[in-house]
Amino acid sequence: MTKSVVNSLRGYSLPLSPSGTSATLTPPPWHFSGEVVMVDYHVDPAAAARFLPPELTPGTDAGQAAAVFAHWQWCSEPDTESADPGVGQFSEFLILLGCEYRGRRLARCPYAWVDQPVPLLRGWVQGMPKQFGEVHQTRPIRVGKAGPLFAAAGTYHGTAATGGRRIAHASVNASTLATEPPPLHTVPLVHSRVQPPWLAGEQPPVELVTSTVTGVEFSEVWSGDATLEMFDALDADFASLRPVTVERGHVFGYAETLVSGQALS
Amino acid sequence: MTKSVVNSLRGYSLPLSPSGTSATLTPPPWHFSGEVVMVDYHVDPAAAARFLPPELTPGTDAGQAAAVFAHWQWCSEPDTESADPGVGQFSEFLILLGCEYRGRRLARCPYAWVDQPVPLLRGWVQGMPKQFGEVHQTRPIRVGKAGPLFAAAGTYHGTAATGGRRIAHASVNASTLATEPPPLHTVPLVHSRVQPPWLAGEQPPVELVTSTVTGVEFSEVWSGDATLEMFDALDADFASLRPVTVERGHVFGYAETLVSGQALS
Amino acid sequence: MTKSVVNSLRGYSLPLSPSGTSATLTPPPWHFSGEVVMVDYHVDPAAAARFLPPELTPGTDAGQAAAVFAHWQWCSEPDTESADPGVGQFSEFLILLGCEYRGRRLARCPYAWVDQPVPLLRGWVQGMPKQFGEVHQTRPIRVGKAGPLFAAAGTYHGTAATGGRRIAHASVNASTLATEPPPLHTVPLVHSRVQPPWLAGEQPPVELVTSTVTGVEFSEVWSGDATLEMFDALDADFASLRPVTVERGHVFGYAETLVSGQALS
Amino acid sequence: MTKSVVNSLRGYSLPLSPSGTSATLTPPPWHFSGEVVMVDYHVDPAAAARFLPPELTPGTDAGQAAAVFAHWQWCSEPDTESADPGVGQFSEFLILLGCEYRGRRLARCPYAWVDQPVPLLRGWVQGMPKQFGEVHQTRPIRVGKAGPLFAAAGTYHGTAATGGRRIAHASVNASTLATEPPPLHTVPLVHSRVQPPWLAGEQPPVELVTSTVTGVEFSEVWSGDATLEMFDALDADFASLRPVTVERGHVFGYAETLVSGQALS
Repeated sequence: MTKSVVNSLRGYSLPLSPSGTSATLTPPPWHFSGEVVMVDYHVDPAAAARFLPPELTPGTDAGQAAAVFAHWQWCSEPDTESADPGVGQFSEFLILLGCEYRGRRLARCPYAWVDQPVPLLRGWVQGMPKQFGEVHQTRPIRVGKAGPLFAAAGTYHGTAATGGRRIAHASVNASTLATEPPPLHTVPLVHSRVQPPWLAGEQPPVELVTSTVTGVEFSEVWSGDATLEMFDALDADFASLRPVTVERGHVFGYAETLVSGQALS
Repeated sequence: MTKSVVNSLRGYSLPLSPSGTSATLTPPPWHFSGEVVMVDYHVDPAAAARFLPPELTPGTDAGQAAAVFAHWQWCSEPDTESADPGVGQFSEFLILLGCEYRGRRLARCPYAWVDQPVPLLRGWVQGMPKQFGEVHQTRPIRVGKAGPLFAAAGTYHGTAATGGRRIAHASVNASTLATEPPPLHTVPLVHSRVQPPWLAGEQPPVELVTSTVTGVEFSEVWSGDATLEMFDALDADFASLRPVTVERGHVFGYAETLVSGQALS
Repeated sequence: MTKSVVNSLRGYSLPLSPSGTSATLTPPPWHFSGEVVMVDYHVDPAAAARFLPPELTPGTDAGQAAAVFAHWQWCSEPDTESADPGVGQFSEFLILLGCEYRGRRLARCPYAWVDQPVPLLRGWVQGMPKQFGEVHQTRPIRVGKAGPLFAAAGTYHGTAATGGRRIAHASVNASTLATEPPPLHTVPLVHSRVQPPWLAGEQPPVELVTSTVTGVEFSEVWSGDATLEMFDALDADFASLRPVTVERGHVFGYAETLVSGQALS
Repeated sequence: MTKSVVNSLRGYSLPLSPSGTSATLTPPPWHFSGEVVMVDYHVDPAAAARFLPPELTPGTDAGQAAAVFAHWQWCSEPDTESADPGVGQFSEFLILLGCEYRGRRLARCPYAWVDQPVPLLRGWVQGMPKQFGEVHQTRPIRVGKAGPLFAAAGTYHGTAATGGRRIAHASVNASTLATEPPPLHTVPLVHSRVQPPWLAGEQPPVELVTSTVTGVEFSEVWSGDATLEMFDALDADFASLRPVTVERGHVFGYAETLVSGQALS
């Protein structure tokens, strides 16, 4: 286990403690397995461009976006979470914007919300702009009538709220098996790692960082018509990313192992 | 839709309103589909007997008990919940005690905890003693490494807490396909419908009520060794139901439609 | 302590248990001390009338309403809550409508939200239509700059949300000491005690019930201009009670002991 | 307002956005006004020493510690929080250890818990090891019976839990007016600013940082006998800081403005 050695105090993150076991975050790698409800859409290309740092360009499909609802189960190596399922699970809603770096297709995440503190803080370590919210999505069922049957056509919904305000609602009428995964879920994310200045006069640099992932797996992907509403609950910057057109929706299982970050180059 | 007509005000439950649409609870039937992690165990037979009203007897397997963790998705008829998944889902932890009424095998629920207000209040309508808690359980996964694979052998955990205190932890090493469902999950529940007295001198009767359910379905059931800890976090009555022996655990999908109650007879 | 004796099982409410100590609710009386932020307003008189059962009339001030935000601390007799402050505190938002019964001035509560399960369930025992929500209000401060100073002029806010949707926002510019408490906070509440039907064919009566309170105390009351917004987040019945005119706001401490209910007569 | 300029993207913290208004954190200064329930105690001096980085020494009162429960109201400059009280309030439980740097008395915070995401993340910017928890404390009342009267003798309690486990309970029998504030609440905090390594091979430095505060104010301080329990709910490092002796408790209002950090020197 990689640990920061801080004098006598240890830990991958705060809180540091004598043996390092008090740290909120375990060091990577972290294994994730999740269920995803995703909607492809397009935003105003000019609005999307304003969310890109100058190193990145919109590329060939300006305004390309996706709204992603996911329920994640995760564990560290060694696994210290699985015996406590309330620790090793969270729900997430995020927005992706298609972009390019020197001709390489990437995705930029301008906003993300999670409902647990560990992924919130772990996101900030990576430069992923996670905030706290309430995120819910339809679960497939094995028996009965209260939802879409597992591994079959059916309708899925996702909702997100923060601070007692609804910010998004999506629905996907998953009707056919897709032949390949949705493109914006197959490209690397590129984040701006930001350290807010705290010491007088401090100006910490902002680094563009992509994530190294291994073990990517998709289950079968069910796709179909979709709807997506983004509500006027936050600021004008968020509102500028409202859907102009809504395309297909997708429902699938997804796994990856998040290993480390690397400076964009 | 069956509605109580209350003068001009309408609604199956509070809040009553002019059109009845403000009621917290929809009228039955309610369709449930859930994922269950369950542990069979035995408690001190004398302790179990103290939790039975005099109409009921322990019967042939005194001290028989089960701890049940479930994640439920549910909807009404017509379905007004599925488009808002945060409304139509909840987690539950409950304890069951085997008992008999005139030779008929039943289950008594002395304690239950849920994490949403609608099932809490709906439980009280039925006489089911639901309280508020935090309940978590392992989810099977489709791809990756962060949990047991769906429809296969694997280890599942469940935890329950209330008021910032852990009350139970269970684990099930689901290793083999069972040939039939766990007995305590196949018999009717019998509840004491209680209306707390509020008017001066009021002594509302307590009724023993069983539930009429239709559409019962089990998925395949995976069973195996199990552990169960009940923590000393509540009162002595709760503590008296600690496991004396722990038997098998089970993991399965389950569905039912809850239609109405009927007086025990 | 008044307890329902239920065969061998005891408790003022569910869950019944051998010694009665597991019950979610303690029996009355319950002592309450709270901080209140309140706005007087008027709704469409026809809308208000539709929320009254036929025994009640709008009376002399048709459409009179109030929005009440309160933070409560409470305890039972004997006090089993004070040592666990998370149990003995909750926040509440409720709406009051002025009404009359045979010339006697009363208040009707069409909607209420609380953020803890005990007051939710205790409300239903009384016929008070409490639901689950997130309620926040400004606290007065003793030192510093982060709020209005205690027992002085200052601006207070209240917000309420439910299910991830904002339902109300109020502000009170408390500028002058009032000579008497706000009228709608001085009259008895009259509730419809409703037991949702569960047994086949059951039609439980609905009773109009007022509350017997003792020990009513007001602190000094600061009053001034106010704003009140009700958002279009719920059903049309709720929306019909939007403010038509907004009058004065009030900030005060309030205490009462809730003793029992009595049938309206 | 000090803003990080990140190419075209702006914001004091993540999320960066075109106008900077989406950032979770506002830049300092932040004004705080709070109500504090605090217990002085001593831990095993050797255990306390293990929580200090080598630059710091235990100093003259080895093992000196305090448990601090606080409810905070806060706002930025300009004030963007007061109109939304759910944003500008949080509860906190923290532990302090007395220490020295070159003969100067300081306090070290090995553990802290808050119940809102903004103070959680803002703590990490400063090196303060905040985690997520549920924290509750008695509120003084103005009228009635449900608590201690404001600005008078009375009993106060505080509780803290995290992940569904109770970690601490304190009580203070505030009986007399103290002549000066509790010493550990009057000295600067010294934090280790930690940036968890994420890029391959990265070893970010750990900096010892104190906070620059202005506008410190104490209300009158009520003191008296106290109790403090720390529960065995977390790791052995946390358990090593259990009370060996418990001294006086204190209840008071406190305010400060947090301006910036400065490297310890």
